[in-house]
Amino acid sequence: MVAMTRIERAMNEAIAASDGSGCPPRLMAAVRYAVFPGGARIRPRLCLAVAEACGDDQPAVADAAACAIEMLHCASLVHDDLPCFDNADERRGKPSVHRAFDERLAVLAGDALIVLAFQTIARQTMLAPPRCGALQLVVARSVGMPLGIVAGQAWECEPEADLSAYHRAKTGALFASATVAGAAAAGAEAAPWQLLGERIGEAYQVADDIRDAAGDSVDLGKPVGQDALLGRPSAVLQLGLDGAIRRLKCLVAEAVEGIPACPGAEDLKAHILSESGRLLPKGLALRAA
Amino acid sequence: MVAMTRIERAMNEAIAASDGSGCPPRLMAAVRYAVFPGGARIRPRLCLAVAEACGDDQPAVADAAACAIEMLHCASLVHDDLPCFDNADERRGKPSVHRAFDERLAVLAGDALIVLAFQTIARQTMLAPPRCGALQLVVARSVGMPLGIVAGQAWECEPEADLSAYHRAKTGALFASATVAGAAAAGAEAAPWQLLGERIGEAYQVADDIRDAAGDSVDLGKPVGQDALLGRPSAVLQLGLDGAIRRLKCLVAEAVEGIPACPGAEDLKAHILSESGRLLPKGLALRAA
Repeated sequence: MVAMTRIERAMNEAIAASDGSGCPPRLMAAVRYAVFPGGARIRPRLCLAVAEACGDDQPAVADAAACAIEMLHCASLVHDDLPCFDNADERRGKPSVHRAFDERLAVLAGDALIVLAFQTIARQTMLAPPRCGALQLVVARSVGMPLGIVAGQAWECEPEADLSAYHRAKTGALFASATVAGAAAAGAEAAPWQLLGERIGEAYQVADDIRDAAGDSVDLGKPVGQDALLGRPSAVLQLGLDGAIRRLKCLVAEAVEGIPACPGAEDLKAHILSESGRLLPKGLALRAA
Repeated sequence: MVAMTRIERAMNEAIAASDGSGCPPRLMAAVRYAVFPGGARIRPRLCLAVAEACGDDQPAVADAAACAIEMLHCASLVHDDLPCFDNADERRGKPSVHRAFDERLAVLAGDALIVLAFQTIARQTMLAPPRCGALQLVVARSVGMPLGIVAGQAWECEPEADLSAYHRAKTGALFASATVAGAAAAGAEAAPWQLLGERIGEAYQVADDIRDAAGDSVDLGKPVGQDALLGRPSAVLQLGLDGAIRRLKCLVAEAVEGIPACPGAEDLKAHILSESGRLLPKGLALRAA
């Protein structure tokens, strides 16, 4: 089955399993709104690509891992958009959750998605108990303290932040979780997959900084120029636009060179190269070529 | 070891395990502030009391379950206090987290505690893998959708809420989780413990409504009269003060009568009766006698 179909189906099933009698309808609507229609589902597709490269012997477990990672990503977007953080009116080309519903439901929808991520892994590993704890730990590490996305976001609340630590936690952690969890879900040794995810995450963050500095808000479905406006750390502010583009190319090259030995290494390399080609707006992609 | 010592030690160890190099200091400070010094730790003490009544064959697993439940409770308090919900300036006799730090760190500290709850269970069940998924599911059900505390809080965002459904989700769910998780952590059959937790949770919620209507803000360490002020559902508004006190007594009696057969049933009964005696302010406790 195509990865995108697996992901959407798993997300739909996980949310439907929580949509029982007695669920407050506006909360459920806010959760669905935060998750569907999704963005490019880059992290869960990376997770499934690694699981497939490692044999994917338990597809339901890999689906749950991918699904959990995407839910945690969506939760972080909902909370990051809140008035006390980015105060973003739009996300993925439509009103942000707190704009479409209200601030309370945005807080709660994020909370509910964090819970649902762990719940989904627990549900889908009932027939493979040893993979439950291993996956939960990989995923929790990428979201919590000291180095997960919550910690990354919290660097914005410190008087001084190290750009690299900030990016590693805010973006890299969930990408690293995508590769490591993909391997763990397929029963492969997980540790060697960490570096690949970190490099892809860093590449993605650099591309995000480039889009924020030089992209188009209509194409992106969210406001641009926020890093400079809010004084946030950014690779473009640090390295300049051309320097940031060079850094991005270098990271993608390192990523594909460092794919651990596995049955599906060639397909995985093709997946990563194809994905990275889509990271920049068209004009800049030509400039990078 | 005394339950309170077990709980504080387990909470300290779980948080210390997340306080690695690279953790944003203000986030860690906000998390500790949200958790220490604690309140009465009613839910985790109930969880340990049930685990002990069931033999407590894996104390580290029971500690993790108790710890997770208290962390989720603390997370819900931090988010409930936010300006968009109760806008509470105080909690447990000191400034609320968003007052002591800021709103962003209150959102993130709550998120971090939700993650840490599941992470702690995963860590402490590595030597007992089949208990990992079972405990995660019990705990997740009590926090998420459709009937957990997040759903309970979300009923405040609906145009109409059923008092009983609201209380069952907002308070009862975590108490039910305390008894069910206590049994599951000790390897006992978990399902028969649901009703006990639900009854204790309902009793606690009725007592909370009574304290809000007739308690003293200095004694409680938080503002009173909020239910009437915010138009929130309340047993006192529905049944009157005396009716609410009668309802509370009835629920406690039903709870102790319904303790499932287990080796430590008598000790557990004593624990529950002793706890319920502390639920009301002194003047009202006499009125209830």
